Amino acid sequence: MNPADLGLPVDVPSTALFTDQYELTMLQAALAAGTAERRSVFEVFTRRLPEGRRYGVVAGTGRVLDAVENFRFDADVLGFLRERAIVDEPTLEWLASYRFRGDVWGYPEGEMYFPGSPVLRVEGSFAECVLLETVVLSILNHDSAIAAAASRMSSAAGDRPLIEMGARRTHELAAVAAARAAYVGGFTTTSDLAAGFRYGIPTVGTSAHAFTLLHDHERDAFQAQVNSLGRGTTLLVDTYDVAEAVRTAVDIAGPELGAVRIDSGDLLLVAHRVRQQLDELGATGTRIVVTSDLDEYAIASLAAAPVDAYGVGTQLVTGSGHPTCSMVYKLVARAESADPKAPLVPVAKKSTGGKTSIGGRKWAARRRDERGFAEAEVIGTGPVPGDLADQQLLVELVKGGQVVSREPLDMARDRHAAARARLPLSATQLSRGEAVIPTEYV
Amino acid sequence: MNPADLGLPVDVPSTALFTDQYELTMLQAALAAGTAERRSVFEVFTRRLPEGRRYGVVAGTGRVLDAVENFRFDADVLGFLRERAIVDEPTLEWLASYRFRGDVWGYPEGEMYFPGSPVLRVEGSFAECVLLETVVLSILNHDSAIAAAASRMSSAAGDRPLIEMGARRTHELAAVAAARAAYVGGFTTTSDLAAGFRYGIPTVGTSAHAFTLLHDHERDAFQAQVNSLGRGTTLLVDTYDVAEAVRTAVDIAGPELGAVRIDSGDLLLVAHRVRQQLDELGATGTRIVVTSDLDEYAIASLAAAPVDAYGVGTQLVTGSGHPTCSMVYKLVARAESADPKAPLVPVAKKSTGGKTSIGGRKWAARRRDERGFAEAEVIGTGPVPGDLADQQLLVELVKGGQVVSREPLDMARDRHAAARARLPLSATQLSRGEAVIPTEYV
Repeated sequence: MNPADLGLPVDVPSTALFTDQYELTMLQAALAAGTAERRSVFEVFTRRLPEGRRYGVVAGTGRVLDAVENFRFDADVLGFLRERAIVDEPTLEWLASYRFRGDVWGYPEGEMYFPGSPVLRVEGSFAECVLLETVVLSILNHDSAIAAAASRMSSAAGDRPLIEMGARRTHELAAVAAARAAYVGGFTTTSDLAAGFRYGIPTVGTSAHAFTLLHDHERDAFQAQVNSLGRGTTLLVDTYDVAEAVRTAVDIAGPELGAVRIDSGDLLLVAHRVRQQLDELGATGTRIVVTSDLDEYAIASLAAAPVDAYGVGTQLVTGSGHPTCSMVYKLVARAESADPKAPLVPVAKKSTGGKTSIGGRKWAARRRDERGFAEAEVIGTGPVPGDLADQQLLVELVKGGQVVSREPLDMARDRHAAARARLPLSATQLSRGEAVIPTEYV
Repeated sequence: MNPADLGLPVDVPSTALFTDQYELTMLQAALAAGTAERRSVFEVFTRRLPEGRRYGVVAGTGRVLDAVENFRFDADVLGFLRERAIVDEPTLEWLASYRFRGDVWGYPEGEMYFPGSPVLRVEGSFAECVLLETVVLSILNHDSAIAAAASRMSSAAGDRPLIEMGARRTHELAAVAAARAAYVGGFTTTSDLAAGFRYGIPTVGTSAHAFTLLHDHERDAFQAQVNSLGRGTTLLVDTYDVAEAVRTAVDIAGPELGAVRIDSGDLLLVAHRVRQQLDELGATGTRIVVTSDLDEYAIASLAAAPVDAYGVGTQLVTGSGHPTCSMVYKLVARAESADPKAPLVPVAKKSTGGKTSIGGRKWAARRRDERGFAEAEVIGTGPVPGDLADQQLLVELVKGGQVVSREPLDMARDRHAAARARLPLSATQLSRGEAVIPTEYV
């Protein structure tokens, strides 16, 4: 049976079709016109942060590298393009041997970005670069939106662990990417097994209300869970009456009970009551996990409550009000001719209706004050000023089509925490405001 | 090389890991307790519509059927679960032979739903049903959110075609599902090639600003595009000066020019000007496509403008303010024992903190007035009243583990249009309001 008939994630055999059709029609027209081989520079950037946000977080870079490596037009895909007459035969022939052979530079994953930051730069022939627009943007726009929400939540949570549990609220594969981005943004674990399988993120999970309801009595359910998963498990205590459930839980598991989970009600109030009850029952080491429609504001409001961990779902995977970024992939320079030595000319859209941008291949650096705190995002097209040379942000990711900069996910996570700690203190205010550092063009 | 190393969509070899870990730990505990085989009924429903929305749209049902069919624990997956010690050996053994053998009923795809509507009902042993929670919810919550936004946009657009072009604003595979859901909700075409490949949705696309910028003059770009794609192509006219571009476009392609696209500026104003200019140039048949950050309100505001088609991206794939639904998957009834003949007992969470629900296996019907317009969503657990018997909403989707109700995507699309036409007229008002019909429990 053809996997394409099954609705499996294998239905698209390479990343080449995560592409808007116009990329292929532009390719066809440029091949015919003799302009397809002009050396070109595309940059990914955003004109603004989501309203009220102080900083953006680059996430998905590792997935972009995977996508570029696997951008191949195999027989199935070519057959589809031929059958639908999406492009002509010379274009199909060109696509059949497609491999990206250009260069990619970008902000390393987990780094901050600001309006105008050139978070990714793709350089090669127009033909090979133009095809990557959609898949690059899909990944960066989605993953960076989730990482930004995660970062706000993890800074609100302080040292308390955050559990990602939003898989049920987003597309099943978006969920895997969301768990990955959340981890970069400071989350500790995920409930999503696919994210554990694919990216090695630590997974957690114990039980739902259904498990209690399956049994004749709450006591039976708790006993079954403790028998099977041990006293260190987390018991869900809000199916019927919370106080009674806590009593039963400690009665069964003793003071070694790992944790109780509260998934409804006034969490602040309930957490205080449950903590007091647990302490009175001698279960002073039993932790309290809360998990009901939390966002960064709710997390912050529980800072003084006796809560030991937060589980976050909906608001994380929907970017806490900003489910996507507004990153664009723009041609900023191209050669005057197909001659590989031809000089690059800066280009930019110029119509009066908005969406204008700045032409030319850019560098970016973060200027810091004497204590090491970020002061400005400096972006330029000429030579890099000497005092900024060692503050440059773009790193080489792909060289001549070869990925040169793979890294474990923990590196991106650590980088993010370090970069956030070097922003001005107001960066982690949850209140709405402007970007925490200005963007300066030189 | 292991595909899991490549970041390909094939990285998860079946749908079984689109699962929150607690489903497996509940399974383990229930297997040990002897309660895993109790016959159980789970229902998917939502307690409310997103704020201000008049109706919900069921989408993703076809993808749910694919996911259930492909929910298999193969050697790779079992190896992962063993290595991480997520469940014990008896559970792994049980999972190795897992196939869903139960029954699924649900609202047919494209149908409307309201608060409390049992949009999907999954029945079988607790063990086999509990595992499907996350993947079922991921699909329905995502796809239904997109379809609801699409439905509002398509009702605002009236007879004018809508092009889905949001792939770059969401996860690359969420984009494919979004294009599918948009089509169900009334969109006409998509720019996403993967959606064309996987679901046969018609694809479209011509060129971006980069294509104009690649060439030395706008005229060269237009000429190259017309040479390659024919006079019927759509030329993008807002890279430099719109009026000049329109003049050049008609000069090159003649009055046979298919369309011009405007992607920035005050669309209402620009569309009027461009229409007048096209008409003066004799290109009276050349259409105008607009594509800049549209949502249902912007579409409605262009109703009187000379616009022939809308391209919608960000706001569609992010659900126009509501990127997810709040559907839950709840145990509503289960047997008193593992005996397959044991009677079912209704169950429901009862704590005071909210999130309560109504126990028992439910039927649902849409009561209609004498003209055939919907009057109420009627939901009950007892026998179906005679006058509602032929208005029932749930259909059989899976019987004894076999999918019995596959259909082409166009059926869901047609069903949606028909169902929307039979709602009260206020359903398609864009203003915020309550659900357009009440939910009644009997």
